[in-house]
Amino acid sequence: MRNRFDTQLTLLNKEIIEMGALCETTINDAVKALIEKDKELAKKTIEAEKQIDQKEKDIEALCLKLLLQQQPVARDLRLISAALKMITDMERIGDQAADIADIVMLADLSLPTDFKDIKQMAEATIKMVTESVEAFVQRDLVLAKEVIAYDDVVDNLFDVIKNEVIDTIGNMPKQSREEQNKMGLDVIDILMIAKYFERIGDHATNIAEWVEFSITGTHMEQEE
Amino acid sequence: MRNRFDTQLTLLNKEIIEMGALCETTINDAVKALIEKDKELAKKTIEAEKQIDQKEKDIEALCLKLLLQQQPVARDLRLISAALKMITDMERIGDQAADIADIVMLADLSLPTDFKDIKQMAEATIKMVTESVEAFVQRDLVLAKEVIAYDDVVDNLFDVIKNEVIDTIGNMPKQSREEQNKMGLDVIDILMIAKYFERIGDHATNIAEWVEFSITGTHMEQEE
Repeated sequence: MRNRFDTQLTLLNKEIIEMGALCETTINDAVKALIEKDKELAKKTIEAEKQIDQKEKDIEALCLKLLLQQQPVARDLRLISAALKMITDMERIGDQAADIADIVMLADLSLPTDFKDIKQMAEATIKMVTESVEAFVQRDLVLAKEVIAYDDVVDNLFDVIKNEVIDTIGNMPKQSREEQNKMGLDVIDILMIAKYFERIGDHATNIAEWVEFSITGTHMEQEE
Repeated sequence: MRNRFDTQLTLLNKEIIEMGALCETTINDAVKALIEKDKELAKKTIEAEKQIDQKEKDIEALCLKLLLQQQPVARDLRLISAALKMITDMERIGDQAADIADIVMLADLSLPTDFKDIKQMAEATIKMVTESVEAFVQRDLVLAKEVIAYDDVVDNLFDVIKNEVIDTIGNMPKQSREEQNKMGLDVIDILMIAKYFERIGDHATNIAEWVEFSITGTHMEQEE
């Protein structure tokens, strides 16, 4: 019985790693589509989000099978509960990446920017997603805590971008109202994209908190 | 058997109406907390979101019981599938309302504004939530379509607020950089709140689309 359970747990790990990899690719593609103004890639990203949704359903079914057939207790039960919670956050990460791609599809961003901070936000959130999944698979509490702390990096970048947006709009050359609004709306799109990254960071933090719960039995929210 | 099914369907309707009412109250309280700078009410709103989460779980359990015990087909099956999908959107509406309350809790908004457009967005989204639930309960296709069309009103209000934000930041009196940034950040908080309302409108649209599916068997996305 235990052997069967271990085999299924290995499969669960494999599936979660795959779902994590899909999230990373989707974030990566969304930011690439943004920087290279590549609407084809943006479209691809929006479609990839459906794969993530499917993966969530597959893993959910696997977890329910594990719960029903194996009736796990204690740490095993926590592990599967954590997996069930984690995939909800991973699915939402996919949503946010698709939301970024949506802006690339709809808007015609023509800003003279190298997206330095946006790129950093993308890198930081990809790192958080990778490491939170790694922490789950390796049952690594230290790594989970590192991910949770790293969310400050993402939040700080978001603050930097907010201030940049204020400066940019505040110092816009006085052009025709129409030109001014076009430029302002582009800047606001950048802000929205930054907001989506900030949210991705929140979801990666949630994942790491569920990893913590699966190892220690205590969830962050209960500690407060 | 059919009678038992009908009794359970009546219970399902009742539960969904209650979940809808919770969403409406939460949106209402979030905007009230914002306008009256009432942090206590904001805190209450964030807590109310947990009731919505619980309601989602209850309705999910009821739907699964209906599916397992009654093995419904055709229209009945669509109805229960639609209910399962709708509650995900309702739960996210609760999340967005709590996000608005979060801003009220954290920020110290000191804008000389009467929040006219934000109030209109709140009213418009509450109307959408109420009517989409009403459309589900009454199996009212016309009302569902009206809700879907009404999302344009919310989107337009969001555009108005975006332009106001650009104008406000663009025309900020030249103060010290510190004062300027404080004011700019307040304005951006308003923009974020507007974004949450825009999202609530999207979720209400999703609900109405699931109602349409439950009646016609065709889902919006499949029509494209």
